[in-house]
Amino acid sequence: MAVIVQKYGGSSVETIEKMKNVAKRIIKAKEKGNDVVVVVSAMGKTTNELLRIASEAAKRPSKREIDMLISTGEQVSISLLSMILNDLGYPAISLTGFQAGIKTKGVHTKNKICDIEIEKITKHLGEGKIVVVAGFQGLNDNGDITTLGRGGSDTTAVALAAKLGCQCEIYTDVDGIYSVDPRVYKKAKKLSYISYEEMIEMSHLGAKVMEPRSVEIGQCYQVPIYVASSLKDCPGTYIKEVDKEMEERGITGLSISENVLMITLNNVPYTPTNVAEVFALLAKEEIVVDMISQTSPNEGVVNISFTTSKDDLLAVEEVILKLKEKFPTLDYQLDTTIIKLSVVGSGMRTQWGIAAKLFELFAQKGIEFKQVTTSEISISYTINKEYKDVAVQVIAEHFNL
Amino acid sequence: MAVIVQKYGGSSVETIEKMKNVAKRIIKAKEKGNDVVVVVSAMGKTTNELLRIASEAAKRPSKREIDMLISTGEQVSISLLSMILNDLGYPAISLTGFQAGIKTKGVHTKNKICDIEIEKITKHLGEGKIVVVAGFQGLNDNGDITTLGRGGSDTTAVALAAKLGCQCEIYTDVDGIYSVDPRVYKKAKKLSYISYEEMIEMSHLGAKVMEPRSVEIGQCYQVPIYVASSLKDCPGTYIKEVDKEMEERGITGLSISENVLMITLNNVPYTPTNVAEVFALLAKEEIVVDMISQTSPNEGVVNISFTTSKDDLLAVEEVILKLKEKFPTLDYQLDTTIIKLSVVGSGMRTQWGIAAKLFELFAQKGIEFKQVTTSEISISYTINKEYKDVAVQVIAEHFNL
Repeated sequence: MAVIVQKYGGSSVETIEKMKNVAKRIIKAKEKGNDVVVVVSAMGKTTNELLRIASEAAKRPSKREIDMLISTGEQVSISLLSMILNDLGYPAISLTGFQAGIKTKGVHTKNKICDIEIEKITKHLGEGKIVVVAGFQGLNDNGDITTLGRGGSDTTAVALAAKLGCQCEIYTDVDGIYSVDPRVYKKAKKLSYISYEEMIEMSHLGAKVMEPRSVEIGQCYQVPIYVASSLKDCPGTYIKEVDKEMEERGITGLSISENVLMITLNNVPYTPTNVAEVFALLAKEEIVVDMISQTSPNEGVVNISFTTSKDDLLAVEEVILKLKEKFPTLDYQLDTTIIKLSVVGSGMRTQWGIAAKLFELFAQKGIEFKQVTTSEISISYTINKEYKDVAVQVIAEHFNL
Repeated sequence: MAVIVQKYGGSSVETIEKMKNVAKRIIKAKEKGNDVVVVVSAMGKTTNELLRIASEAAKRPSKREIDMLISTGEQVSISLLSMILNDLGYPAISLTGFQAGIKTKGVHTKNKICDIEIEKITKHLGEGKIVVVAGFQGLNDNGDITTLGRGGSDTTAVALAAKLGCQCEIYTDVDGIYSVDPRVYKKAKKLSYISYEEMIEMSHLGAKVMEPRSVEIGQCYQVPIYVASSLKDCPGTYIKEVDKEMEERGITGLSISENVLMITLNNVPYTPTNVAEVFALLAKEEIVVDMISQTSPNEGVVNISFTTSKDDLLAVEEVILKLKEKFPTLDYQLDTTIIKLSVVGSGMRTQWGIAAKLFELFAQKGIEFKQVTTSEISISYTINKEYKDVAVQVIAEHFNL
């Protein structure tokens, strides 16, 4: 018998009614002769609601206690889903993170899985049961309940599949991975496969279907991941090792991030230490700087532009106040009309002309860009959002996305 | 430093606001130099709400999964209370049943504590922390999460106090134990002390302040139990070993149970096996029979009356249908106008006249009773509820309750 891991997210188990639909899908997999391990998230918006209550209880809620609190969300889902399966005549057993042997380490609310003692799960599977595991949680060396942070249930599912040496199916409210977000480009194609590295890159660059951490684990342990709809019965997307065919396709996807704040600092007195100091101060405030550009020094001063997340606006303004004390001539602009457009494809490694083609397309359409960064398999541009539609259109059409 | 265990019930932690008040009381005990272990129940009606959701999920929810589900209620309370204490500057740590080392056995939803591995709690107390333990729950030998049934948080608190060799304070929405329920008899006195056996007897007989199981543990391990209000600062009631003074007081309390169903079976053909069969059938349906009376056999038939809980009405009717098949002459009445009135006092052991005095009082007031049962320290009567007020009045006044 083949083992499979299926993961259902919060929106798929939002109500008892939706859970009953999920149970039918699980039963279908079981009836096909599979041993089934199911990983579930908390119902709907439960985690956010618990966090809201925590903020009512304390100004600075202890993170250990946050984990204790929010881990109840998955515990509720697994018990209800197991009741439903049992009631339908399919023996099922729910296991919390600690019962499923999920060992974690790190800081509370952002733990990482370091091992899974799989024996309990395999024993129950051996007895013919469907095993329903709480996603997102585990137990650390102190015996404290921990959680894995954003996308944690995906991580639990992929890590379990890695340990069980089987496929991991992620059922969600989208029906697969698209070359471009269909809300941005209607004609976007659903990919039938994408490589781990492309998926990781796209996630980092703004595609929200899966968190990079879970895909990284999948890549590390060669777990085939299948992403599909929890509602519709239509083919989803496989995430797997890069192959010849993928390399030939040049560009696999395009992603847009609108959460971009561009800061331009003018008239910074030019010495290498001054520039370093700017970024040291930003780092001290835990501001993640993404793209940087700098003009050539002119008359002893430089202009520096960089981008961060819009969430960091307040922290950035504090840093600028400190910089103005130090460099009274400093003058600055904050720009929130900027977006980041990235194209991703394993094919970039072997097809040299892609970057050149992109610059050519931008030039044809008169699209100005502010900064450019590249990785081995991606190129990102910051552009003004007025160019968004035309840029997406021209790239998607040229590369057949 | 003295260790104390404090227990706060669901109504005391119903809202964040009420939890903050509870936190102040805990801090007061800590400031007095005590090591404090706190046991809390689920917030307000959480457990009932979770059970309602379970009944929506499944017709016959698995009891193991019920335990998995409802144990989240206390986990939410302990984490929030610990956040509040930490936020107020008092280091606190929450522990679920399994983390607190509470080992249980038995059937799911009605487990019993069989041992507590206390080391983790004493370690945290040693580090100066307030330890907040989830009531009502534990872990069985299989590693399954279990719950202790009705009054389970009291049981957790008393068992912890037994293991720690300290006093157990039960804070609740009543301000102590009264000789008679003040809703039934306004002039009822609050007792400053009551013996374990009296409290157990009164609980069994309908007083709802504490479940008998927790008091039994208190008696077994000689844990001083103090019951008081979680809102008001007024003296409560100590539950402790019986002493000379208690024995002299004759009757300690009077309790009324209105949840009484009296069944009368007429014309049961009289043989000892027939009567036995009636009660065997009742037992098979798990109907707990409380008081029984039987007329002398007359013309080969007997009339049998017995009482059960009103909750068993449907089951009783099913048994009667079966009996009518067997004994076609059988005829029956169901009476729900009956109440049970019980008086309890350790003094009954040494003061012989109490039963006689009660019969005399009943005769004086013309109160008819249906059945009488006695234990070593109690006498119970079933009477029609029209006599309730006069019976309570005459007994309470005579015995100065």
